[in-house]
Amino acid sequence: MSFAADLDAIRDAHARIRPHVHRTPVLTCATLDRRAGRRLFFKCENLQRGGAFKARGAMNAVWRLDEATARRGVVTHSSGNHAQALAIAAASRGIAAHVVMPSDAPRVKRAAVEGYGARVIPCEPTLASRLETAGRVVEETGGTLIGPYDHPDVIAGQGTCAIELLEEVPDLDAVIAPVGGGGLLSGVALALRELAPRVRVLGAEPRGADDAARSKASGVRVTTQTPDTVADGLRTVLGELTWPVVRDVVEEILVVEDAMTIAAMRLLLERMKLVVEPSGAVPLAAALSRRFAELEGIARVGVVLSGGNADLDALPWARPQRRR
Amino acid sequence: MSFAADLDAIRDAHARIRPHVHRTPVLTCATLDRRAGRRLFFKCENLQRGGAFKARGAMNAVWRLDEATARRGVVTHSSGNHAQALAIAAASRGIAAHVVMPSDAPRVKRAAVEGYGARVIPCEPTLASRLETAGRVVEETGGTLIGPYDHPDVIAGQGTCAIELLEEVPDLDAVIAPVGGGGLLSGVALALRELAPRVRVLGAEPRGADDAARSKASGVRVTTQTPDTVADGLRTVLGELTWPVVRDVVEEILVVEDAMTIAAMRLLLERMKLVVEPSGAVPLAAALSRRFAELEGIARVGVVLSGGNADLDALPWARPQRRR
Repeated sequence: MSFAADLDAIRDAHARIRPHVHRTPVLTCATLDRRAGRRLFFKCENLQRGGAFKARGAMNAVWRLDEATARRGVVTHSSGNHAQALAIAAASRGIAAHVVMPSDAPRVKRAAVEGYGARVIPCEPTLASRLETAGRVVEETGGTLIGPYDHPDVIAGQGTCAIELLEEVPDLDAVIAPVGGGGLLSGVALALRELAPRVRVLGAEPRGADDAARSKASGVRVTTQTPDTVADGLRTVLGELTWPVVRDVVEEILVVEDAMTIAAMRLLLERMKLVVEPSGAVPLAAALSRRFAELEGIARVGVVLSGGNADLDALPWARPQRRR
Repeated sequence: MSFAADLDAIRDAHARIRPHVHRTPVLTCATLDRRAGRRLFFKCENLQRGGAFKARGAMNAVWRLDEATARRGVVTHSSGNHAQALAIAAASRGIAAHVVMPSDAPRVKRAAVEGYGARVIPCEPTLASRLETAGRVVEETGGTLIGPYDHPDVIAGQGTCAIELLEEVPDLDAVIAPVGGGGLLSGVALALRELAPRVRVLGAEPRGADDAARSKASGVRVTTQTPDTVADGLRTVLGELTWPVVRDVVEEILVVEDAMTIAAMRLLLERMKLVVEPSGAVPLAAALSRRFAELEGIARVGVVLSGGNADLDALPWARPQRRR
């Protein structure tokens, strides 16, 4: 069966985006190794441009457009990291980005997207309004719609982080990536499947949005859920293109409680000095979970810290400032 | 005139400590480049073992000891990053570390040092008591006293970060490092002086502990001050070994206000996703200062983010948690 991307497409994507994204570092921490009972290699996509791996997929999609198509601009509907990434990618090519965003999205997110030069089109905070508004913008501008995950070029772009991780640490036994819509996890899985098939690929998902785990358990894609998790980047369900990869190539989805995610986020701040958003800390929570400890034959683990766009004024453990 | 260390000593140190410290990444940020009007290359010593560059000097000093001397252990008096670094270095060699610490030091700092296996000896919170207690411990144990900065092996160790920075970015025009006791700044200056004499070396210092700037202005080392700054790692005055280097090799000390340091710390968290302690953010504050903007002929700047051990429960801008 054929998936949304193969290693050739991911290698092409890597060459294409290299001038426009950071090659993020792979960091280690002896304290966290001891906690996990394994060696952990953190691929720091929180240090990526725009603060998340999303720049990879957006850059690949934007730079793959032919010149005439590109000139009409790109469109998306998102209030998250993909919107910022697409704004950055469009700016890097000097084309317009139109971002449809619910009118109740946080002002900082709107400001961030506008700060990268994109045009924000507000819509009602319903999925129907988002889709309708995006459709109208596409019609008016002739721009190309680039969604956040269910797109072959986006999936291939996200897979590039697995190539870099393996270049730094060739002898990994497993890689853990977070799963929301599944763009990152399926890109990583498709890269490793050909590049290093012995590396086991695991997804990490919050209990309050565990559609991927439930889909895998039943063999049927769950298409709706009512998410309840601090990991706001992982509230989406799997897409049509990402689901077959998660079903057939990903070994298992590790499900973690929000309390573990928050503890992982704090460990990353304190021990590794890294700001990682809740969604980005889910893979570390999974790496420290009881279920993962049960899996045998895994000594060296790649952990994708997928993003760093945390709200610093409302950290989950924040306390009022001490008077000193 | 001869200084505390030369490039040979720094290269030896680099080879010696390499198995025991992180090669920290050099990161960039387009947004901060725009703010500075220059390309900034951040040497991330906040991601170093123990959360600060201090691991470099401590490792070099500990691993240079001959076997018999090492077996009697090492001693220091400090409640800061050097204490942690020495604890880590001693543990890496399997020898004892005795750390004299004022009885009013924060419990987290004591716990951190003990967590690395060192023995903490409390003393009265006066300099006299610290020195006396350290002297007694040296007498009792036969251990070697390794101070935080005024020590040739420590200075050589700190200089190794300049070698790595230049390996990643050969064509720098200037490097900015923070200055407290001057171990890091003088190590960096001594490395670059021989390795790349065209690179201008600048110190960065808080207004409330500006002894290095005042020493350079008068030509006479200021030996006491009453510090008043959020940058707790930079409250010390220059040492006997570091002062001649700051006087003769460092071009200028850039002095910054605490408000600039706090703003820089916040920028690093928000834009670069890095936890940097106030002392470590002082060089970025300097890079964004009006005085630095006036210096001509500087396009590419190395900025040493020296440490990341910030108190996350009392960030300088913290507000009570929002109810949502």
